[in-house]
This record gives sequence, C-alpha cells and structure tokens, in this order.
Amino acid sequence: MNQYLLNGKLTAKPGHQEALAAILFQASKLVATAKGCRLYVIGKDKADSHSVYVTEIWDSKEDHDNSLKVEGVRELITQAMPLLDGPPAKGQELEIIGGTEI
Amino acid sequence: MNQYLLNGKLTAKPGHQEALAAILFQASKLVATAKGCRLYVIGKDKADSHSVYVTEIWDSKEDHDNSLKVEGVRELITQAMPLLDGPPAKGQELEIIGGTEI
Repeated sequence: MNQYLLNGKLTAKPGHQEALAAILFQASKLVATAKGCRLYVIGKDKADSHSVYVTEIWDSKEDHDNSLKVEGVRELITQAMPLLDGPPAKGQELEIIGGTEI
Repeated sequence: MNQYLLNGKLTAKPGHQEALAAILFQASKLVATAKGCRLYVIGKDKADSHSVYVTEIWDSKEDHDNSLKVEGVRELITQAMPLLDGPPAKGQELEIIGGTEI
C-alpha cells in the first residue's frame, strides 16, 4: 500500500499563530510514536503571518485516522479550535508513488 | 537554521502523467544523496489524473537550490518540460518550525 501524505493549513485568528503552532508541536510529540507515523512537521510561510501548515506522512490513511484517537490528541484539537479563524480547510491528500524512503 | 519544505505541483499534458512521474523518480534518486536532502517524495492526487506532486525537505533553501546543479538533474528537467501543460507553477515554500525530526 502506498504511503499517505496530508498537507494541512490552519489559519489562526490575528495574533494567535504562535499559540496555534505551540499546540501543534504538542500534537507532533503525541503522534510521533503512533503506528505508521513517518513525518509530522509544522511549518509557516514567511508571507503569511496567520497560518500554520502541517505536513504528515503515514503508512496508510487508516493510520492517520487512528492517530486522531491517540490519548491527548482530541484535547489538543479542542484547545486549537477557538484559535482558528473559521473551520479548518480540508487538507490536500496525496498518495506517495515514489521518491526517497521514509 | 530552520529546514526548508517545498510543495510542488507539476501538471502534465493529457496522457503524460506516468511519464512525468517516471522522470521525477529518476530525479529523486539523483538528489537523495545531495547535501541537505531530507525528503523528496512524489505523489499523486486520486482526483487529478494529470498532476504529479513533489514534496521536498532540505536543511536549507540553499541546499535545495544547489540540488538543481546535481549532475543529471538539468537533463531530467529538460526531458520533463515538453510533457508539462504550461510552465510549472511556483511551489509553496515553508519554513519548518517544529515537529518530528527528519
């Protein structure tokens, strides 16, 4: 089965980008050891002072979906929601078909 | 210095998605051992039968830029250009600020 890549973008209300990023750092620590997690990095775009980006690679979409049940993750999502400027956009889902191994 | 993440999307002329992906597989082999290359994966979106996506992580933007000079890479770019449906879009550049180590 091909690995699953998810590019997510979360836009914070003005002034809350850092707080949102801090929550995602905590999330990355929780899911780093989850089954099938290969990559979970948080990024920002220099031209966008409101958004935080998450790039994830999982052995399968199922592994990704299960990560939302990891203890503590739901609590972090609950903390993040009020910081968001509207509902989170659906991420871009890709199927990895080649490249460097991870 | 924070790592550099590049999300690229290349759209092929109809019927050339696989040929374009094959060129990118070769490129990934060339750059996998380049200085600072942490990730170079090729993906596709199930809903898009024309495009090929490249997600790259480098220790720095400079390392990425230098990878374009790796022997053989320019030749592959030259091979890929006629397969593209228009000039390649500028990729999304992110600065990694946290997450799992890679």
